[in-house]
Amino acid sequence: MLINEHYMNLSGNYLFAEIARKVKAFRELNPQTDVISLGIGDVTQPLAPAVVEALHHAADDMGSPASFRGYGPERGYEFLRQAIAFYDFAARGIDIKADEVFVSDGAKSDTGNFQELLSADSVVGVTDPVYPVYADANIMAGRSIVKLPCTADNNFVPELPREHLDVIYLCYPNNPTGTVLTRQQLSRWVAYALEHDALILYDAAYEAFISDTSIPHSIYEIAGARQCAIEFHSYSKTAGFTGLRCGYTVVPLDVTAATAAGRRIALNGLWNRRQSTKFNGTSYISQRAAQSIYTPQGRQQIQATINYYMHNAHQMLTTLRNLGHKTYGGENAPYIWMKTPGGLSSWQYFKLLLEEANVVCTPGIGFGPSGEGYVRFTAFNTRENTEKAMERIRAV
Amino acid sequence: MLINEHYMNLSGNYLFAEIARKVKAFRELNPQTDVISLGIGDVTQPLAPAVVEALHHAADDMGSPASFRGYGPERGYEFLRQAIAFYDFAARGIDIKADEVFVSDGAKSDTGNFQELLSADSVVGVTDPVYPVYADANIMAGRSIVKLPCTADNNFVPELPREHLDVIYLCYPNNPTGTVLTRQQLSRWVAYALEHDALILYDAAYEAFISDTSIPHSIYEIAGARQCAIEFHSYSKTAGFTGLRCGYTVVPLDVTAATAAGRRIALNGLWNRRQSTKFNGTSYISQRAAQSIYTPQGRQQIQATINYYMHNAHQMLTTLRNLGHKTYGGENAPYIWMKTPGGLSSWQYFKLLLEEANVVCTPGIGFGPSGEGYVRFTAFNTRENTEKAMERIRAV
Repeated sequence: MLINEHYMNLSGNYLFAEIARKVKAFRELNPQTDVISLGIGDVTQPLAPAVVEALHHAADDMGSPASFRGYGPERGYEFLRQAIAFYDFAARGIDIKADEVFVSDGAKSDTGNFQELLSADSVVGVTDPVYPVYADANIMAGRSIVKLPCTADNNFVPELPREHLDVIYLCYPNNPTGTVLTRQQLSRWVAYALEHDALILYDAAYEAFISDTSIPHSIYEIAGARQCAIEFHSYSKTAGFTGLRCGYTVVPLDVTAATAAGRRIALNGLWNRRQSTKFNGTSYISQRAAQSIYTPQGRQQIQATINYYMHNAHQMLTTLRNLGHKTYGGENAPYIWMKTPGGLSSWQYFKLLLEEANVVCTPGIGFGPSGEGYVRFTAFNTRENTEKAMERIRAV
Repeated sequence: MLINEHYMNLSGNYLFAEIARKVKAFRELNPQTDVISLGIGDVTQPLAPAVVEALHHAADDMGSPASFRGYGPERGYEFLRQAIAFYDFAARGIDIKADEVFVSDGAKSDTGNFQELLSADSVVGVTDPVYPVYADANIMAGRSIVKLPCTADNNFVPELPREHLDVIYLCYPNNPTGTVLTRQQLSRWVAYALEHDALILYDAAYEAFISDTSIPHSIYEIAGARQCAIEFHSYSKTAGFTGLRCGYTVVPLDVTAATAAGRRIALNGLWNRRQSTKFNGTSYISQRAAQSIYTPQGRQQIQATINYYMHNAHQMLTTLRNLGHKTYGGENAPYIWMKTPGGLSSWQYFKLLLEEANVVCTPGIGFGPSGEGYVRFTAFNTRENTEKAMERIRAV
């Protein structure tokens, strides 16, 4: 029996597993040391009271014969898809309907799995640096990857490719660089996709962190995107759902791809076929929890937590800049991308910070070759730990 | 941009979506009629009190800074994997360790996704009739499928294939036929797999319904299975988790497959790589709920619900046999497989039952060509509805 040989082309370890292992080894050697992680993008603040209340309510539903819920609707419960269509789109003047929304267990699964709908011969473009899932999922499927470098020279905004791409992953606000695309920059990508019959897989996981009103929250704010873009949303960072698991994917009815014979097939139906075959829906309880963040209290509470994290980001930016570090992001995103000092490599600086400051960052090289010489900091720790980490970095 | 052309080889609709559409159409034409579903295998009884209590407790954990949980460990929480390794395996004298267990959001996702680890050229065997996911997931990946007919002639026990298979899906107790494999029958499959370097993907989703003490609950009760079998478990039917989403997959450290160069690779590590790239874990709340079914109260409560469903199955068997129908299963499984009367096709009998008795069954043909002339009934409805459905069938 033979394995899927493409797996042998992956780098040995998933980046965050590799970091966790190194941190664990350090902790075992230094059991007294208090290590602060500004590395993996996990949140620290508890769920909002409105969400906890919804969880309790849903738990009670499941314990009573009259309100018990078994398998849910394939695309997610109507109560949640309607709330999404209204609050995340209609209320912002964006034309997305509830039957274009697929509730999922998180954006990672969907950004990883969506490529299955496309030909194995598709040429896939990803930014470099990039969230590893986009590239790894395509390497597993044997596809060739074109890297679109994002560097200080282009201000971390990728240039349009010279070659033909079939699929382009874009994530804005960006993980890992924390940078954003203006409406004009995003429009250029939509125009490219329409011209090249390419598909944009747009990861909007961090849109809730945008404060600059001129920055688009959704690719569907751009005319033409309904024909060429899929958009992924997550409640993980928006509402602290990293442990609860819920997100959604928008597949507009207008997005099609061709069969070999040239027939156009709607990806909405194809994704439904994929999900109804290889997925069995998101927990009812998590869907009720997600619904609760669209209530007035829920909205207010999750905004307070986002403000809390963005205040961390602001403090980090101030400290790092005062220390003379070159930074990007951190203004419309919970990530700060920083040039390593003294020409250190990403892993060298990771090691130095871990050993000297007992602070964990994410080595930029883990996100791709153009990430070499950078590290990523996240704003998701507590205020106290964030301040302590900045003091320690100041002292190094 | 081209689609994955293999999707065009799928039948138009996922079986249960097709049934749902037909039932919906009937209901719209007959709004006064009370339709009883013995079709889709969804449960009706609420979650056990111990599970509801665990859900509340976990919801509170998530609302407090000290006990909040973000991203969980990749393979699932230790508290659950240890309980699984102990109660489902060690306590039964089976050698499976916690680090061979991967907690998932349900067996459907894992039985659908596991094939990704294997070469696209693998020859895959599935029983016929079969739970559609196994075949569809492989058709989506472009693999050729060998059907192993299960008919009244072989008592719905597939014969060993004459050709070489790389992968074999077995589901026992079986969905849809409700039949089981004896230890001796299962041993033959393990011997075949070891001889042919084949992989058995063993779906044990219904093991909790086994009452006959001579029938194996796990393929790992058979010597040699640790070298050649992956086993899928679900809490969906065991504990009514269809809406809560939790299951697990066992990938023994001894199971390997070859690279093209002949190097053996452990599937445990490969599955970990797949899951840590394209999945982000099961809800903490669902994992706490799953843990609770291993407590003394939890075990007792879920057993009571299983007994309730199996009492339904017993009543259904009695009625259907008294009516002269030829039935299979229903003794160690929540499914009854019945020959349609009068030479009717599966869909003809489905239509007749829906229109004349207002009872929904699942047409056997939906599970494969050998299912033609059969229907599947499930024991998962309430006692009241099950009895009412039997009365109506008696009256047809």
